[in-house]
Amino acid sequence: MSTVEEWVSAPARIAGPDEGVSIDELRLAARNHGLPLEALRYDVTPAGLHYLLTHYDIPAIDPAGWRLTVSGAVTRPLSLGLDELRARPRVTHRVTLECAGNGRARLSPRPVSQPWLDEAVGTAEWTGTPLAGLLAEAGVTAGAVDVAFTGADRGFERGVEQTYQRGLPLAEALRDDVLLADEMNGLPLPPQHGAPVRLIVPGWYGMAQVKWLVGVEVLESEFDGFQNVTAYRLKQSADEPGEPVTRMLPKALLQPPGVPDFQSRVRVVDRGVVELTGRAWSGWAPVESVEVSTDDGGSWRPAELGPQPAPYAWRPWRCEWTAIPGRYELRVRARDGAGHEQPVDQAWNRQGMANNHAQGVTVVVR
Amino acid sequence: MSTVEEWVSAPARIAGPDEGVSIDELRLAARNHGLPLEALRYDVTPAGLHYLLTHYDIPAIDPAGWRLTVSGAVTRPLSLGLDELRARPRVTHRVTLECAGNGRARLSPRPVSQPWLDEAVGTAEWTGTPLAGLLAEAGVTAGAVDVAFTGADRGFERGVEQTYQRGLPLAEALRDDVLLADEMNGLPLPPQHGAPVRLIVPGWYGMAQVKWLVGVEVLESEFDGFQNVTAYRLKQSADEPGEPVTRMLPKALLQPPGVPDFQSRVRVVDRGVVELTGRAWSGWAPVESVEVSTDDGGSWRPAELGPQPAPYAWRPWRCEWTAIPGRYELRVRARDGAGHEQPVDQAWNRQGMANNHAQGVTVVVR
Repeated sequence: MSTVEEWVSAPARIAGPDEGVSIDELRLAARNHGLPLEALRYDVTPAGLHYLLTHYDIPAIDPAGWRLTVSGAVTRPLSLGLDELRARPRVTHRVTLECAGNGRARLSPRPVSQPWLDEAVGTAEWTGTPLAGLLAEAGVTAGAVDVAFTGADRGFERGVEQTYQRGLPLAEALRDDVLLADEMNGLPLPPQHGAPVRLIVPGWYGMAQVKWLVGVEVLESEFDGFQNVTAYRLKQSADEPGEPVTRMLPKALLQPPGVPDFQSRVRVVDRGVVELTGRAWSGWAPVESVEVSTDDGGSWRPAELGPQPAPYAWRPWRCEWTAIPGRYELRVRARDGAGHEQPVDQAWNRQGMANNHAQGVTVVVR
Repeated sequence: MSTVEEWVSAPARIAGPDEGVSIDELRLAARNHGLPLEALRYDVTPAGLHYLLTHYDIPAIDPAGWRLTVSGAVTRPLSLGLDELRARPRVTHRVTLECAGNGRARLSPRPVSQPWLDEAVGTAEWTGTPLAGLLAEAGVTAGAVDVAFTGADRGFERGVEQTYQRGLPLAEALRDDVLLADEMNGLPLPPQHGAPVRLIVPGWYGMAQVKWLVGVEVLESEFDGFQNVTAYRLKQSADEPGEPVTRMLPKALLQPPGVPDFQSRVRVVDRGVVELTGRAWSGWAPVESVEVSTDDGGSWRPAELGPQPAPYAWRPWRCEWTAIPGRYELRVRARDGAGHEQPVDQAWNRQGMANNHAQGVTVVVR
């Protein structure tokens, strides 16, 4: 690194055993907000309650001047303005998005980065045109392997200056539910969700959902940019390459019952029959079961599942609990149709990615 | 406290000298988000980027069933539905709101509560009906002193179960710019900003802007509820009553120039002439000057002020900086027409309220 990179970027590190959250991590937490857990009540998350993770700054883009290029291994490169994109076939998909780093701050030891607890998730109705149609129009060549997506957001990360870019395997990019979205919940994308146009790859963690999209490049070799090769890897040590983070592992969240304490967020619930509700999702297959524990994972009971509203949208669940006075640690866990089940205790990885340990909610019954 | 209160609420405390941010504070930071500082570019903050502080949970209110009561020391108590409220005279005010705890996490030692750094602010266009008209209709009696506002949000705080309530001196409540707002930036209030109706008291810190408003009660004695008498007090020790927190002290914020590092948020700027821009506000009087330091407060130069868009909305400012390579700590400070000036170093108070030390932004010029 030159002096500039050393001044701005620290190497990746793991917090010490008793090290509190640092001001750097807190600054990220103040910028990048989660879903307040009571907002699990909404089938579709209202704008402003959906989680957000912005790597650099939210860019200022004039929609009138915005253009998207489709280039690389194609026979007819394209350059489209927003009106041209919006004139193409339009579809709407309800999709749950979760940050790949969700749960990171619960790991021990804690990887120092965006310090999510449980809340980096949201579900929206995304409207736009299928990417596959655009790629067909451009004519993908026979040797194509990956598609690289470039955003308009720029900054440094671990000493590397970059514009946000992610690669996606061609087979995923050609799925008919992968969208170039310009509307969220029926309105133009808000600035923080990628205005004017973002990528939506249902089922994948948030890093694939490139915001402020300006470039789509078809590649004849695997994309080797920072966000695929260095970041978003599942690994135990700094020097191994690790495995890529891709689809969301199953997770259930409980809408915390009763009323909270301001500071501790511990919940107070009146004795009697309490309805416990929440949502569960997986990027691998529909959720097939949700289980609830009222004794911190000692025993589990099945929850009743509501209908699956869309292949990659969270599924509602509910169960009843006859609460008697005392202090409880509620836990919930989901299993999907591909056989993935949430662990009660989290396996550790060095970047704190794809954590799906069972959420805990402390409740005092009176 | 009974067992229930002891289980849910910890006493107020001050962090130890080297104590990192706790998981409790982090949980609040993940829920209650700030304005990403690049959003200082917008005259009016888009919904979802405006700061939020929710004491308990965002309540679920059906607007069709919502009613507001006006009661207490009035000759004609009122009960109004949303349509009736919206049929009254409507005005729109552009107002900057800031959390009274903004800057708390920069205090040393740090009061343990919502750990804001610099970003708990936003400016919106609030539309609704003046409170004064409703109070005139209800007929405030001669002995009235305070008006108490009750929200629909409920929880515990420091061992005290409560519905969020704040009192406001009658003279403030009768100002013609105090609103019962049901729209933000031209749309119905989002759930997190108090839907369907909230109070707006221009110039005051956020605790006065009661969300999810359901009750207005005129009192013939001073309101003595928790949020006025226990919370939101300026004091040095636990056992003194302290002074109430009221209006916003002046503050300037700089829109961080250049591009950021993901983790440290240090900015990288290219050498040459750099335009520095930002916003400044005060709840006491219009901002009269903004000054910028590029040497961490050693020397200051005046910024050029843009027009004041409304009495209690932030005012834009700009200045040019000829940046030569090196590392800099930029600071900005404002002074208002009432003679309040931002300090470079923050005075300390036990609850971490009304902090307005000059923001610092670390910049590396290359």
